[in-house]
Amino acid sequence: MDPRVHEHAEVLVDWSARIEPGDDVVLAVEEDAHELAVAVAEQLGAVGANLLATYESSEVSRAYVKAHDGGFEAGAHELAMLQEADAFLALGGGRNTTAKADVGGETQQAHSRAREAIREARMATDWVKTVHPTRSLAQQAGMAFEEYQDFVYDAVLRNWEALAEEMAEVKEVLDEGREVRLLKDRDDQPTTDLWMSIEGRTAVNSAASVAYDSHNLPSGEVFTAPYDTEGTVFFDVPMTINDRRVRDVHLRFEDGEVVEFAAEQGEEVLEAELDTDAGARRLGELGIGMNRGIDRFTDNILFDEKMGDTVHLALGRAYDANLPDGETGNQSAIHTDMIADVSQDSRIEVDGETIQRDGVFWFEDGFGEA
Amino acid sequence: MDPRVHEHAEVLVDWSARIEPGDDVVLAVEEDAHELAVAVAEQLGAVGANLLATYESSEVSRAYVKAHDGGFEAGAHELAMLQEADAFLALGGGRNTTAKADVGGETQQAHSRAREAIREARMATDWVKTVHPTRSLAQQAGMAFEEYQDFVYDAVLRNWEALAEEMAEVKEVLDEGREVRLLKDRDDQPTTDLWMSIEGRTAVNSAASVAYDSHNLPSGEVFTAPYDTEGTVFFDVPMTINDRRVRDVHLRFEDGEVVEFAAEQGEEVLEAELDTDAGARRLGELGIGMNRGIDRFTDNILFDEKMGDTVHLALGRAYDANLPDGETGNQSAIHTDMIADVSQDSRIEVDGETIQRDGVFWFEDGFGEA
Repeated sequence: MDPRVHEHAEVLVDWSARIEPGDDVVLAVEEDAHELAVAVAEQLGAVGANLLATYESSEVSRAYVKAHDGGFEAGAHELAMLQEADAFLALGGGRNTTAKADVGGETQQAHSRAREAIREARMATDWVKTVHPTRSLAQQAGMAFEEYQDFVYDAVLRNWEALAEEMAEVKEVLDEGREVRLLKDRDDQPTTDLWMSIEGRTAVNSAASVAYDSHNLPSGEVFTAPYDTEGTVFFDVPMTINDRRVRDVHLRFEDGEVVEFAAEQGEEVLEAELDTDAGARRLGELGIGMNRGIDRFTDNILFDEKMGDTVHLALGRAYDANLPDGETGNQSAIHTDMIADVSQDSRIEVDGETIQRDGVFWFEDGFGEA
Repeated sequence: MDPRVHEHAEVLVDWSARIEPGDDVVLAVEEDAHELAVAVAEQLGAVGANLLATYESSEVSRAYVKAHDGGFEAGAHELAMLQEADAFLALGGGRNTTAKADVGGETQQAHSRAREAIREARMATDWVKTVHPTRSLAQQAGMAFEEYQDFVYDAVLRNWEALAEEMAEVKEVLDEGREVRLLKDRDDQPTTDLWMSIEGRTAVNSAASVAYDSHNLPSGEVFTAPYDTEGTVFFDVPMTINDRRVRDVHLRFEDGEVVEFAAEQGEEVLEAELDTDAGARRLGELGIGMNRGIDRFTDNILFDEKMGDTVHLALGRAYDANLPDGETGNQSAIHTDMIADVSQDSRIEVDGETIQRDGVFWFEDGFGEA
């Protein structure tokens, strides 16, 4: 077995999920994640946790939901399992990312709605989502299999402790800041000049560990929940919204709301997103990607939004973790991330101080310390 | 997909497990049983049951138990899942039947002991065990893959209702009978002449359905719990005991107990079995195989013991289902099945009446009805 599979398992169990002896752990294994499941099982055995593996197959799920009359129920057995579980480790890695392409949207939604209590029980555990590199994911990323393996392990096998310390510095600046300004030029023309209020909001240091309220491996972003957005923004990293490609999105905000929009590709998809509900035209998240192991777009949001030298904004729902206790942030049925490359001709300012210039942070270059 | 996979799923869900709308079903999927899992999921969706699939991988289990310090616990999450489950459908079919060959016996036993409550909770559901034909099982059977597929579907896709009616006739004779005599010659020499008391015992019509207290698919045997065994018996179907091959076993019983034994191969394995405990030298089961879809030995007890024209006896523990309420049968840590071919030069008598001669039952030939 590739030694990196074992290292991946160690990071997942020790750093990300903080598994302890006697913990009741659900290991949710997708069709082609077998190798990682074996390595994680070994790690769980070494720690002395109690292992129960579930089989997360898109093909099994497709067959089930298509044959069902649509009156779905949450299984009491699944709910009981999750209520007793201390941790839930989801090992992504299927054989076909479009395995459920022929399941109708209504069926998917009905199934998803019926499983709300199951989702909540899962989120109440120390859950972590990761992926095992499979040929299907390599294909989605447009990469050779070995090339994709290198990509995944570069993203996952970081010095997380060191990255968490760097991200803590960014979190501190955002926590204390009142206003973020994002600037970007293209061919010497300004494409982005956006102001957002962040006062009173708490940033999350997403360091790929439940100890940091971070549930993705890889992670590596600092995010907060902005409001009162004004100005224009351009997203140049391609994205997939509802299984459709969307490219080169321009948005203009007034009084916190999108008042103009355009896209080179998929504009009608973008329009449908914006029309979902009132909150769909407001921002729910500002995230700063800081994982430099992720150096390219692979059409997988687990990786894309953490890419180093990028910033992402999400239209729609805000995360509770960013809000003061009892306060509700932006509400919406959607949370749609859009990503901008800020490695060149770009600047991020907090309260007038530059914290990143062309992808380089102030603490890396000292430029903001004067 | 081979249409027989769908038929297999239908038999499992409808005939064997009797799944009803709203049932909470655990689908336990071995590594290579994916296709059958998809077909069963479709069937469960059509019925309107609630599906939770678990991943039963010998390699995952091996990695876990080998890394563990041996102080195993039953996971509260697994126990809770089973306590809420109505049915447990085990889909066998791995990639390597010897995947756990390097796990020490003590480790296996410690793991198994710690999981006693889990096993009991599983047995309290409407559980059914079946197998999907895999290359690994074909290899164990010494067969080509397609040949093995045909073999499995011949065994599984029976007219179970008709077979259940035939088996009911045999059950009735055994329920009313006091004594069974088993006779067999080889080259005109008697090799088997065995008497067993069965008075007061209840036979089980194992018709591959929970409705018949039968939990294997395929099944197709009628079994009871004999006692006061006297005489000699010869088992000519090869068997695997504790992963070792044992062949051509002779046993002689006096006062219900084995007093002489011999085997052409694996005699030391047989001796160790007999020395396990006091009950290991007494019979726990007499079974009459009636599944004529199973026409050969495949080194898999799920199939072997149901083979048409065979009789099997088990040393060790008796099943409660064969005993009057409150009565305990033979007790032992082992239950070791040994199989005799009775298709030729053989006779089964109950209270002096022949019920089977050279593999043919009285109701097939009318010979016992005069």
